[in-house]
Amino acid sequence: MSEPGLFDEVLARGGVREAVGDRAWLAAMLSAETALARAQARIGLIEPEAAAAVADACRVDRFDLAELARRAGRHASPVVPLVRMLREVAGPAVHKGATSQDILDTAAMLVSRSALDVLLADLSGASDAAARMARTYRNVPMAGRTLLQPAAPVTFGLKAARWLSALDAAAERLTAVRGRLAVQLGGPAGTLAGFEGRAFDLVEAFAGQLGLAVPVLPWHTDRTRIADLAGALGTAAGTAGKIARDVTLLSQAEVGEVAEGAPGGSSAMPHKRNPVAAVSTLASASQAPGLVATLLAAMAGEHERAAGAWQAEWRPLRDLLVATGSAMSWLRACLTGLRVDAGAMAANLSKFLSDVDTGCSGELVDRVLEVR
Amino acid sequence: MSEPGLFDEVLARGGVREAVGDRAWLAAMLSAETALARAQARIGLIEPEAAAAVADACRVDRFDLAELARRAGRHASPVVPLVRMLREVAGPAVHKGATSQDILDTAAMLVSRSALDVLLADLSGASDAAARMARTYRNVPMAGRTLLQPAAPVTFGLKAARWLSALDAAAERLTAVRGRLAVQLGGPAGTLAGFEGRAFDLVEAFAGQLGLAVPVLPWHTDRTRIADLAGALGTAAGTAGKIARDVTLLSQAEVGEVAEGAPGGSSAMPHKRNPVAAVSTLASASQAPGLVATLLAAMAGEHERAAGAWQAEWRPLRDLLVATGSAMSWLRACLTGLRVDAGAMAANLSKFLSDVDTGCSGELVDRVLEVR
Amino acid sequence: MSEPGLFDEVLARGGVREAVGDRAWLAAMLSAETALARAQARIGLIEPEAAAAVADACRVDRFDLAELARRAGRHASPVVPLVRMLREVAGPAVHKGATSQDILDTAAMLVSRSALDVLLADLSGASDAAARMARTYRNVPMAGRTLLQPAAPVTFGLKAARWLSALDAAAERLTAVRGRLAVQLGGPAGTLAGFEGRAFDLVEAFAGQLGLAVPVLPWHTDRTRIADLAGALGTAAGTAGKIARDVTLLSQAEVGEVAEGAPGGSSAMPHKRNPVAAVSTLASASQAPGLVATLLAAMAGEHERAAGAWQAEWRPLRDLLVATGSAMSWLRACLTGLRVDAGAMAANLSKFLSDVDTGCSGELVDRVLEVR
Amino acid sequence: MSEPGLFDEVLARGGVREAVGDRAWLAAMLSAETALARAQARIGLIEPEAAAAVADACRVDRFDLAELARRAGRHASPVVPLVRMLREVAGPAVHKGATSQDILDTAAMLVSRSALDVLLADLSGASDAAARMARTYRNVPMAGRTLLQPAAPVTFGLKAARWLSALDAAAERLTAVRGRLAVQLGGPAGTLAGFEGRAFDLVEAFAGQLGLAVPVLPWHTDRTRIADLAGALGTAAGTAGKIARDVTLLSQAEVGEVAEGAPGGSSAMPHKRNPVAAVSTLASASQAPGLVATLLAAMAGEHERAAGAWQAEWRPLRDLLVATGSAMSWLRACLTGLRVDAGAMAANLSKFLSDVDTGCSGELVDRVLEVR
Repeated sequence: MSEPGLFDEVLARGGVREAVGDRAWLAAMLSAETALARAQARIGLIEPEAAAAVADACRVDRFDLAELARRAGRHASPVVPLVRMLREVAGPAVHKGATSQDILDTAAMLVSRSALDVLLADLSGASDAAARMARTYRNVPMAGRTLLQPAAPVTFGLKAARWLSALDAAAERLTAVRGRLAVQLGGPAGTLAGFEGRAFDLVEAFAGQLGLAVPVLPWHTDRTRIADLAGALGTAAGTAGKIARDVTLLSQAEVGEVAEGAPGGSSAMPHKRNPVAAVSTLASASQAPGLVATLLAAMAGEHERAAGAWQAEWRPLRDLLVATGSAMSWLRACLTGLRVDAGAMAANLSKFLSDVDTGCSGELVDRVLEVR
Repeated sequence: MSEPGLFDEVLARGGVREAVGDRAWLAAMLSAETALARAQARIGLIEPEAAAAVADACRVDRFDLAELARRAGRHASPVVPLVRMLREVAGPAVHKGATSQDILDTAAMLVSRSALDVLLADLSGASDAAARMARTYRNVPMAGRTLLQPAAPVTFGLKAARWLSALDAAAERLTAVRGRLAVQLGGPAGTLAGFEGRAFDLVEAFAGQLGLAVPVLPWHTDRTRIADLAGALGTAAGTAGKIARDVTLLSQAEVGEVAEGAPGGSSAMPHKRNPVAAVSTLASASQAPGLVATLLAAMAGEHERAAGAWQAEWRPLRDLLVATGSAMSWLRACLTGLRVDAGAMAANLSKFLSDVDTGCSGELVDRVLEVR
Repeated sequence: MSEPGLFDEVLARGGVREAVGDRAWLAAMLSAETALARAQARIGLIEPEAAAAVADACRVDRFDLAELARRAGRHASPVVPLVRMLREVAGPAVHKGATSQDILDTAAMLVSRSALDVLLADLSGASDAAARMARTYRNVPMAGRTLLQPAAPVTFGLKAARWLSALDAAAERLTAVRGRLAVQLGGPAGTLAGFEGRAFDLVEAFAGQLGLAVPVLPWHTDRTRIADLAGALGTAAGTAGKIARDVTLLSQAEVGEVAEGAPGGSSAMPHKRNPVAAVSTLASASQAPGLVATLLAAMAGEHERAAGAWQAEWRPLRDLLVATGSAMSWLRACLTGLRVDAGAMAANLSKFLSDVDTGCSGELVDRVLEVR
Repeated sequence: MSEPGLFDEVLARGGVREAVGDRAWLAAMLSAETALARAQARIGLIEPEAAAAVADACRVDRFDLAELARRAGRHASPVVPLVRMLREVAGPAVHKGATSQDILDTAAMLVSRSALDVLLADLSGASDAAARMARTYRNVPMAGRTLLQPAAPVTFGLKAARWLSALDAAAERLTAVRGRLAVQLGGPAGTLAGFEGRAFDLVEAFAGQLGLAVPVLPWHTDRTRIADLAGALGTAAGTAGKIARDVTLLSQAEVGEVAEGAPGGSSAMPHKRNPVAAVSTLASASQAPGLVATLLAAMAGEHERAAGAWQAEWRPLRDLLVATGSAMSWLRACLTGLRVDAGAMAANLSKFLSDVDTGCSGELVDRVLEVR
């Protein structure tokens, strides 16, 4: 487990940071090279011994990450030096017929899958907490607020059910996107040349090795997959942000309807009870829209491999996974520990609204809990 | 049909501009009010005559758009004055139990559906043109280019098949999102109060009237639907931009492999043959990433209705539909008229690359054409 | 004065909408053509009579905007058909030596200047209101709040002084940017060919006619000016949003420290007192970041004129002027009418904080007022 | 010097990465605490010995960055645990009267200043290379290209002069922004309470210690400074991207007018001569627009310290410095080593354009060189 950076516990919380770290990327690139060799062996394009030698060369601990990183600049890709290092050990069976983008894109899919798994686990924890609150506070009335003004009664259960419903939608979409993460294999210009007429079998075998989907075509400059992933992450981050905003507002001393279980302190004010988890959720989540925009703008790459637009994806894809994952990790902590003050809710309601009809709040809670 | 604005033929081309215009929005709001009244009549919450009166009051030509627009500022919503105007004519059966966001969000869904229909038709036209080229040029070799340098041979059919595959993916996603466009109905705080215990029947009937989906919950501050739509549009725009970039590059005089059927002229240079359709596709498509970011950032609204974030959606949602629709309309024109110079392709290929193996280009074309 | 669009009174409030409207753009393009002809006459490149004929042809009311707009698509520019129409009337003296981007960029500068003038007037109104409150409430204590929790006492005067200081900084920057708005003149490839050795005199005369700055070089693909303008507008919008956010929070019923002078109503809840001006300020201001990003991304245009990136500027530049102008117009209304409840401030302060020391709040107010 | 990350040599090239690294941030926070103590000693608020003890406690090598980072999450700030560690050693003279944002914002200014210095040095190197080419190729004709089509002759010197002019404008703006980087000091709610009537002297002394500007007010929630810095960086990145795009296009084999001095290779194609420096410039620069948008969106923070929006600045500010710095470092390498083929320029010109008049290209070059 690598050490956190200075702001990581705020903005890169949870397992997702490790899942997209440099070691994870290196391991994913090596998995891709190994899987490619094994797939070639399986369909008879190289000898089994050669594939075994590639697999052996691809052990993560054989590599000096910093050295690899230093050599990456010269070719605008870490795969070019990686392949050279591997070929010194395991010969021409390494990376046979592939292009560097085949390996890096496939690695990006593996890294994204790991990150999504971590993220979905935190999302699930946050959902469970929301579901518990929806059930517990199904009939506990509070003021509904629109444009930040008291509007009409709701129940806190309904508010929690709304959070839950949005989280469930985010999970569904992320899971669908996860299922479409696909291997990349096309060779230099995406024509699958150089595989002795066995190209399509090879792609299937390669995908099978890694548990990734088989794409219709090499997708070197069709970045739909990345854009879809970005959209799903951006939506999930937005949902986390919405819930956290509600928590910061309900936590205001003047409102006092909820409080975080582990509020944070201040360097100057011992009395402060800062809703640190909600604040950090918001800070993490608000990274997402700009990163999504960067990834969408990178779609318009040139010809068979982009001159800048592809390389431009690496950082924002990683950062978007981290930002959304961090938001979900904080949100889980926030919701799991949330303390609810039903008395304060009742007091505010009676102070600001004469209406007491919470409508179908309870039935709406039930609907959400049923479709889970 | 309204008059185009000064830049509209470049940046807001095609039917989508009309589909999201003010008259379309007004018609959609009136459709929502009509459908709400009819649905209430159907389940017995109001008299059929009252619903008929509402429907009659909701004729578009009864309204002075400019007057309505002028009154919208005072309440930060055009629905508040619209409801007042309607109630003067058709009484309390108008908008019964609803809140202004119910109507405006439902109208947004109707407008988006119309815009998507126009957009999907243009996308389909572009796809068909790409499919034709994929078939025709299945085996016509050309230089594949990576990082804007000659890399390895491809066929122009494969390039067209890649465009096609990405367009088909965009269409599939947009169609899926279209199918999830749902009515909004929740009343002031989203509790479905005020419908005499018939709320869920009413939502079904309301959705049935409009052919929209039934949401699990009112979604006043769960903007997943908008975010998903934004993501799908952003992806589609990115795909259009990628194809148009390829066309501008292949059209360079020094490359000369394709030419637009109707190139544009210059105010100063009679010899110019500008790839106007591709350029306008790029200009339109490049509006999308920033608009998607604005919509994602607007997800974090407060409590039961956002204080600014909801209102912040109206412009970018409309503009994103227009930008993507305009890009697709231009792309269709670009691809439909594209002239392909197989001789120039062959000449460049032999000049810059010694390799002639186009790999599985043909089979890849076939795969794409098969899955259509 | 043109009619407002459906959402314009919320998102495009104030004079800025008119200042950037199609008629204003047409007038600006015609001013540019007129100024170019007059400048050429002044230095002897064309006859005075020819310039007078151009000026006469350039009367706005001679043009059918819709017809012009319709013809703009074919060349991805409204200037190409405009020049044709003008030449039919005034002959070859029209647009002599210029390229369409010379005219459109110069028009963009004229339009931006008008829009900035409107915007700066509204900003000044908002600043004056903030200054009045800073003075009036210099010593009126209230709770300072950090992370939405009571932190330490401030005065409302200090809060208003902070708003004022940020507004003044925005005004200063916008004024500086306004002063650098420059004519564009370069001819087809930006070489100032075709002006018989008098090119630099001509640029000076052209700039003099329009009251714009003289650039060192034609700036067809150096978009620093646009980017600087975008940055200044984005900063101003962010400042407006910050102030409006404070107002929405202070207006919460549970806080009750300020109220808008003209709150908005609801279609369903007669008791609502919505802070409509602050909400609309936020909605307008939140358009800005995405639009700035679009303009910055459009900087990387190709060679001597961009193939898409230039055309991509037209909409976001206009929209950014509108969004920021609308935010400032709403903010002015918000602050001008703001009602301050010093009693509520005192009550909240004593309820949530034991400290009463407002530090240097008063002196800080004085500092801000002094530097105005 | 820390080890590079896997993608750092592509996307975080040059000294800027180190300048904004965790050690630099830690050093900057410790410099701020030291300067605060020394300033307090200078004006007599604490004893000189106490200030010396603080300074001694603030040695970077006393701190375990990872441990500090781990403790930062609980309070959503690394300053809270840092101050605790420091107080254990140097007692209550540490951080006296300050709030954590005072230190972190001041550190952000110090880090930004260092990063700008590195960036400006690389920018200067790139400018010098452009100036040399402008001079050398002042009269070397080539085809000017608009919308990627041959338009009219220019000289390569003029093209280089345009690059130079835009770079000089970026440098001027960055230098101006650098000069406005200011200390942050306000205490818990920004009132400068707790400094015994010497607050303004203290701010002056604090700023003097660090060589930063004195702000009119504490700027905890007036983020104009950050937004201005962001805008200037975004503009600089856009300029770098524009130049790099030209280089990638001129480097196309079919154009062949320039070549990078150290082109990169491919993992699969030994003949490739990839314009790696230009490609990496583009990849780095294209990170900027989304990051600027994130920073602008973070301006609308709540009250006296934002609940999420402030914390949201940390990552994009750092990343924007890195992205722009990396772009400039790559651009310097690109331009410094650029090989220019005047023969190819002449050949393309004569092949595609009959006009040979390069207008005032030479004089325009001179104008740019003169204003340097």
